[in-house]
Amino acid sequence: MSANKVNVDLQRERAKCDFNTEELTNFLDWGVKYTEKRRNLEQKVLSVKGLLDDTPEEYMSHKEKYENSIRKSVLFYKTLHSMEDENMSIDEKTRINFRNIVTSAVFKDNSPLMLHNSMFIPTIMGQGTDEQKAYWMKRAKNMEIIGTYAQTELGHGTFIRGLETQATYDPDTEELVLHSPALSSYKWWPGGLAHTANYCVVMARLYIKGKSHGIHPFMVQIRDEETHMPLPGIKLGEIGAKLGFNTVNNGFLGFENHRIPRDRMLMKNAQVLKDGTFVAGSNSKLTYGTMVFVRVIIVNSMANMLAKAVTIAVRYSAIRRQSQPKPNEPEPQILDYVTQQHKLFIAIASSHAFYINAMWLWEIYYSVTSQLAGGNLDNLPELHALACCLKPLSTIDATTMIEKCRLACGGHGYMLSANLAQTYGLATAAYTYEGENTVLLLQAARSLVKAWGGHVKGQPLKGTMAYLAENPTVKVWDGSVDGIIQSFKVVAIRKLSSVVKILKEYEKSGLSPEDAWNKASVFLTAVSEAHGRAVLLSVYKSETDKRAAALSPPLRKVLLQMVDLYVTYWALEKVGDMLLSYVPVVGKRASTVRRQFALSWALRLDSGHVSPIAFMSAAAERRQYASITERDVEELQRRYIELLAAIRPNAVGLVDAFDFRDEILNSALGAYDGRAYERLMEEAMKSPLNAEPVNQTFHKYLKPFMRGKL
Amino acid sequence: MSANKVNVDLQRERAKCDFNTEELTNFLDWGVKYTEKRRNLEQKVLSVKGLLDDTPEEYMSHKEKYENSIRKSVLFYKTLHSMEDENMSIDEKTRINFRNIVTSAVFKDNSPLMLHNSMFIPTIMGQGTDEQKAYWMKRAKNMEIIGTYAQTELGHGTFIRGLETQATYDPDTEELVLHSPALSSYKWWPGGLAHTANYCVVMARLYIKGKSHGIHPFMVQIRDEETHMPLPGIKLGEIGAKLGFNTVNNGFLGFENHRIPRDRMLMKNAQVLKDGTFVAGSNSKLTYGTMVFVRVIIVNSMANMLAKAVTIAVRYSAIRRQSQPKPNEPEPQILDYVTQQHKLFIAIASSHAFYINAMWLWEIYYSVTSQLAGGNLDNLPELHALACCLKPLSTIDATTMIEKCRLACGGHGYMLSANLAQTYGLATAAYTYEGENTVLLLQAARSLVKAWGGHVKGQPLKGTMAYLAENPTVKVWDGSVDGIIQSFKVVAIRKLSSVVKILKEYEKSGLSPEDAWNKASVFLTAVSEAHGRAVLLSVYKSETDKRAAALSPPLRKVLLQMVDLYVTYWALEKVGDMLLSYVPVVGKRASTVRRQFALSWALRLDSGHVSPIAFMSAAAERRQYASITERDVEELQRRYIELLAAIRPNAVGLVDAFDFRDEILNSALGAYDGRAYERLMEEAMKSPLNAEPVNQTFHKYLKPFMRGKL
Repeated sequence: MSANKVNVDLQRERAKCDFNTEELTNFLDWGVKYTEKRRNLEQKVLSVKGLLDDTPEEYMSHKEKYENSIRKSVLFYKTLHSMEDENMSIDEKTRINFRNIVTSAVFKDNSPLMLHNSMFIPTIMGQGTDEQKAYWMKRAKNMEIIGTYAQTELGHGTFIRGLETQATYDPDTEELVLHSPALSSYKWWPGGLAHTANYCVVMARLYIKGKSHGIHPFMVQIRDEETHMPLPGIKLGEIGAKLGFNTVNNGFLGFENHRIPRDRMLMKNAQVLKDGTFVAGSNSKLTYGTMVFVRVIIVNSMANMLAKAVTIAVRYSAIRRQSQPKPNEPEPQILDYVTQQHKLFIAIASSHAFYINAMWLWEIYYSVTSQLAGGNLDNLPELHALACCLKPLSTIDATTMIEKCRLACGGHGYMLSANLAQTYGLATAAYTYEGENTVLLLQAARSLVKAWGGHVKGQPLKGTMAYLAENPTVKVWDGSVDGIIQSFKVVAIRKLSSVVKILKEYEKSGLSPEDAWNKASVFLTAVSEAHGRAVLLSVYKSETDKRAAALSPPLRKVLLQMVDLYVTYWALEKVGDMLLSYVPVVGKRASTVRRQFALSWALRLDSGHVSPIAFMSAAAERRQYASITERDVEELQRRYIELLAAIRPNAVGLVDAFDFRDEILNSALGAYDGRAYERLMEEAMKSPLNAEPVNQTFHKYLKPFMRGKL
Repeated sequence: MSANKVNVDLQRERAKCDFNTEELTNFLDWGVKYTEKRRNLEQKVLSVKGLLDDTPEEYMSHKEKYENSIRKSVLFYKTLHSMEDENMSIDEKTRINFRNIVTSAVFKDNSPLMLHNSMFIPTIMGQGTDEQKAYWMKRAKNMEIIGTYAQTELGHGTFIRGLETQATYDPDTEELVLHSPALSSYKWWPGGLAHTANYCVVMARLYIKGKSHGIHPFMVQIRDEETHMPLPGIKLGEIGAKLGFNTVNNGFLGFENHRIPRDRMLMKNAQVLKDGTFVAGSNSKLTYGTMVFVRVIIVNSMANMLAKAVTIAVRYSAIRRQSQPKPNEPEPQILDYVTQQHKLFIAIASSHAFYINAMWLWEIYYSVTSQLAGGNLDNLPELHALACCLKPLSTIDATTMIEKCRLACGGHGYMLSANLAQTYGLATAAYTYEGENTVLLLQAARSLVKAWGGHVKGQPLKGTMAYLAENPTVKVWDGSVDGIIQSFKVVAIRKLSSVVKILKEYEKSGLSPEDAWNKASVFLTAVSEAHGRAVLLSVYKSETDKRAAALSPPLRKVLLQMVDLYVTYWALEKVGDMLLSYVPVVGKRASTVRRQFALSWALRLDSGHVSPIAFMSAAAERRQYASITERDVEELQRRYIELLAAIRPNAVGLVDAFDFRDEILNSALGAYDGRAYERLMEEAMKSPLNAEPVNQTFHKYLKPFMRGKL
């Protein structure tokens, strides 16, 4: 692209950026090596003919969207296959794919074959015996069969023990009978299940001789390999249109006493012997590992989606001009409005925070799984609890801020050609998948309350929970970045200790532990949020310090500004928590302290033992308790506004450094050249309605209506 | 519908509701008379054959959606016409339509003819001379022509002075030459403009003899009445797919020196004489009136959309069962989880709050417009400022809560058959239309700062601004409903007085007034929010007290519970503001007060003039300043949880009372009978993809791919 075609405002923005954007790109990519690998992969995929749509998907019918995505899927997966390196470690793969979202250039949402690689194959690997793996993996890897993974049912989601699908063993024929006893037991949601996959791993409850043996995975052929017709006893279809993922072919699946051979149960963990003997698995905490892994990926993908949205919004805000605050001056770029900076810059910082937390979480996860291989499970519960906080917080923040980016683009953000609404649609799905956010926060709260109970009994707190053992009462408010992070820890400690008290109180008042838990659940989710925020903030800061040490001073300065912005923003968002947590000023205990303090001084003054001057200095000492003041808050507010001003000149450079190709942004508002109005019009002209000047409905309906003849 | 088909959980919920839902329906409808009229209208429209879709719109292509909506539009408007009563007052019309959203049953979003009645006709009425009205109104009323209203341009939105479209008067031919000097001046957004309307009111900048005379409305024919072809010099088309409103046919419009007769300028306010003399209009504040009216309608429509979303979510939460907190007990209804109640009940209360505020605002507006007719404009600026707060607050709250309702339905909320995503898509559009929210909040702030300046100089504050004159320092925190509302006023006063100080400071530091305003703009929007919240809360409370006086005690009790919930919820949401506003505890002034206080007592104690006991009671007195404590916050939290428990048994009754017919809810999850799973499946079966067991793409792409032949 020649520079002279780039919008002049954007040219000026780029000229004034005072750090090296390529250096930041490499930093976000986990190193220059991965920037290269990512770009190479993007280049290969995007040069395949037929992978990008001429007519945008939004103009197609639901059926056409599916058919188009199948056409593209086979091209896409063929390309991916050709690039695959069997010897690559999972660590290397994760790093290369950390910021690879080229899929979103090809499918505005995703492919019906997505679950084949992301769920079907990993389940065979994780749950199959060596023999099963040998047989199925060959067929699956070559895509001779296409599989998916069916767990969720129409009536059952996050609560897996509630699944109703039955797999009853018949020792006479050595078969398993799959059955859906009610409509609510129909599988519902799996991608590719409706018309695409011919195999499926089905999670069902195993019954042997009338006895239930829990939920297990079964490999089920669902369609004929020749004709693709659903097999007898299998009911298949698609679940219908959704907010997003409309090309993914999500399906439903019901069974009418459908029989499969015994060896189709994936038996690595538990087995059914020929005679119907059930051999239970070791049921270790190992499955935690996969859940943690998936949640690391979610934090990472939220960073990517948010980065995409804010790239679009910041570039558009640099070229959009609006209003005329000063007479005789041109309309300013909307990026110069402080309210606009307030909406957008936190999204850049949050994206950095999520990238860096995801990197850190991945490195811990990778080291913990090595420990797992060696039989050491000690760090798993704490890591699991952390992932249960970070997945919800990252999805909540990212979706909120993506939506803010869309709204910051005014009316044009509402156009699908801006690609902001679709980005939101995809991101918000993560709110419920892989564990509904509220349920996860309550799971994390369970771990935190348990850890606190142990701590009270003198057991040590580990890893990211270690700070909970600190004594919050002696902490003094300190407006530095580290001081604020410290205060977030104080908030978490206070909320946790307070909810433990509330739980006890509720139980004392006669509630069962379960009812007490429910009654306190709003506070419990707040505890998990507070813990998650404390970790997010402190990891973002400490890892930036560590990872940025080798960077050039201008970039390091910018990165630390972003940390400062993030920390200050959240301190102001949670100012009520801050004020309440430095309690002694306003709290019950505090007023006791204050009263005792006043009384003792009154007595001492009365007895003539101290002078008024000593009283004054004692009052100053007492300020250690009353440590966050209105003035502190005002200082935070001023600092926040100054930070926005300091970041402003680098804003476009910061989003350029996310390094999204135009095909990936897929946005009329966000393209590198800033030709937003021209592109909006070019995209509009792709609408099939614009192919003819007069639509047929004029003659059929409108004209007779206007002539009063209808 | 026979009762035995209703889900048993819903039957049980309805049996335990302890108030009369019909009485509540009448209350929300502004009286029993309007309930009847609304139901009658719904019945008439919904019994027209062909107005409801057999195949849901989401399966159609973009073009099919438009064609289908034109087919339905002519049926729909014919029906409306047949029911029209020419003699009905605007007050009566507003009340009948207050809770009439039958349009949403017919068009999941809206009709391409919508702007004909809502903007085209009112503009002719408001801006045309008597002669112009006589000619155009006849044609428009009979729908012999179909019109729309074009103001916004590709490059210009809320800032109307920035519009670029030119209307240059040519005295030689007595014509006006319409021209679009740049792509950014193309009209962009008007509903029905693309392929539907043949006339359009165009807002353009008038030039006479090279001089600009501001923005005026022009009546422009855009298509031939016979052929519907765009006229020469007129470029028309649709703007493409959007997040919502895809059947509305939003269009673009550009002019290439297109000539219209002089008398096509709507000349009620300003005129161009034949010789090119410009006669300026009185340019009164009268246009404020229309803007206020539209914003009343928006507050009202937010109440309706939110009520719809929460009806769906509460009914679904009553039939959905999940998890098993207690062994050997059935899975509970998710409505029994306190976290779920926390997500949903505030949406019911907010809907009530918006209905009641909209009723009150309408009544004020109606009385102010009578004053306007009599030449009294005194109350208009304050009313305008208020509308500039309530429109943003109602759209922000409603969209946030609608989305919360969707997420509270878990994965199924993501299905379009739930009709929650579409409801959000429509509601969120109000965030930007009729004045972008941030811009409006800053406009309101401008009025508030100005009023404060007047107040300081001794001028009286009027109407909803009167409370700003109260002295906040003497207020004592009081956790009653009225006490909390009072404290919201204190917050607004403090924020306003503080921002005035900040503005002065910024100007003192050398910034121009405009730059100071921009730098303080984040705080300024917070001032408007605080003012808006204070009014919303206090009107909700006082109007409920007043309007509910004649109701039965059980209903009155429930309505006051909702007020209590709303007030408590917002006190907790804004706890930081509460803590900061009862400042003396933590503020700078406070510590001075405290120090002085301590010193004076120390001296008096020292001199033996008072006893320690007197010191103690003085300390208690001092608590008047330090009036909101951690303990107060804990009490609020407890009260909030108790309120959720108290409302729980009536939750389904409360949403039933919104009285939305199933056709209007249009939701598999929210239908009256609660057959959510059956309906999800029935809706899925309407997908054209489910019409055939094997899609053609299997043979064309998938099979060759799986056989490695592609």
